[in-house]
Amino acid sequence: MADFAKKVPYPVGQVRHYLEPGPVVLVSSQAHGRSNIMSMGWHTILAFSPSLIGCVIASANHSHRMIRDSGECVINLPTTELVDQVAKIGNVSGADIDKFAAFGLTRLPANKVQAPLIAECYANFECRLYDDAMIDKYDYFIFEVVDAQVATRPAHPETLHYTGDGVFMVSGKTISRRALFTKVS
Amino acid sequence: MADFAKKVPYPVGQVRHYLEPGPVVLVSSQAHGRSNIMSMGWHTILAFSPSLIGCVIASANHSHRMIRDSGECVINLPTTELVDQVAKIGNVSGADIDKFAAFGLTRLPANKVQAPLIAECYANFECRLYDDAMIDKYDYFIFEVVDAQVATRPAHPETLHYTGDGVFMVSGKTISRRALFTKVS
Repeated sequence: MADFAKKVPYPVGQVRHYLEPGPVVLVSSQAHGRSNIMSMGWHTILAFSPSLIGCVIASANHSHRMIRDSGECVINLPTTELVDQVAKIGNVSGADIDKFAAFGLTRLPANKVQAPLIAECYANFECRLYDDAMIDKYDYFIFEVVDAQVATRPAHPETLHYTGDGVFMVSGKTISRRALFTKVS
Repeated sequence: MADFAKKVPYPVGQVRHYLEPGPVVLVSSQAHGRSNIMSMGWHTILAFSPSLIGCVIASANHSHRMIRDSGECVINLPTTELVDQVAKIGNVSGADIDKFAAFGLTRLPANKVQAPLIAECYANFECRLYDDAMIDKYDYFIFEVVDAQVATRPAHPETLHYTGDGVFMVSGKTISRRALFTKVS
């Protein structure tokens, strides 16, 4: 497995580089003396500054209450090497097991939140709940990314993009059309 | 170029299959006697039933006012063949040109909305504005998908996923872990 334990700080205003392509992510949380992980595919960038991410965490998920109560989480970016863990994490409840132990993932302390980072992921984005106005109606959380770190290699990690039905698309190959962008952003 | 002119009806509750992987999409709109297209990467599925999509359409975009006034749009899914059009559409304002004519794209009538479909895209998802409560604060529109049609080949189209800086990731290859899903959804 790739060694992503060594990461470098990353500007929080640029997390769109990794999240806008739409990968499935692993959301780690901590509350009431326990930690948990969920797989999440329903998320979008909302703003650069502050660095905001909107995402759905269904109330049926054990993580929903934990993240609502703690007001924090970490969005971790898994690569294709973790496809089995991503699938398994999404198919068992944190109410029943310790997913870090069950799936061989390593907790690391975060810089600014209590929730743990997942060492085996390519990137870790520490988040604080920024706006809870849409939670009751849509299970929709708006987070501010308050700290970020990413691995340095490969430059473009191969990520998983969930389609439903147990099938992931894989992306990693890139196409540049920079010359067509009048204002690069 | 692939011929996606012939499409088949698709269940609106299953559009996540194409949108959850996070592709850049082309949003077509019509208002005040004119139509327009914008490129959009900030979107997420919000619910299956009703079929809801949340997305950011910045107020600086010409499409913002058009979609707000008409309460409608079409989310069109481009494949990698359209990478030049996607980049160019995102770098010019509909206030200045007719993007359909400028970029060789074909308007087709939609079934349930006034906004035109883009024939050259793999899929067309017709949307009505469902909730405008987040527009003022976050430029965030919540749409209901009211009609959908998709091309039938290829089964997994190669799509573009924007990273910023003029660079797109490409996805199309798939990995199935269906056997690991206890409840396939």
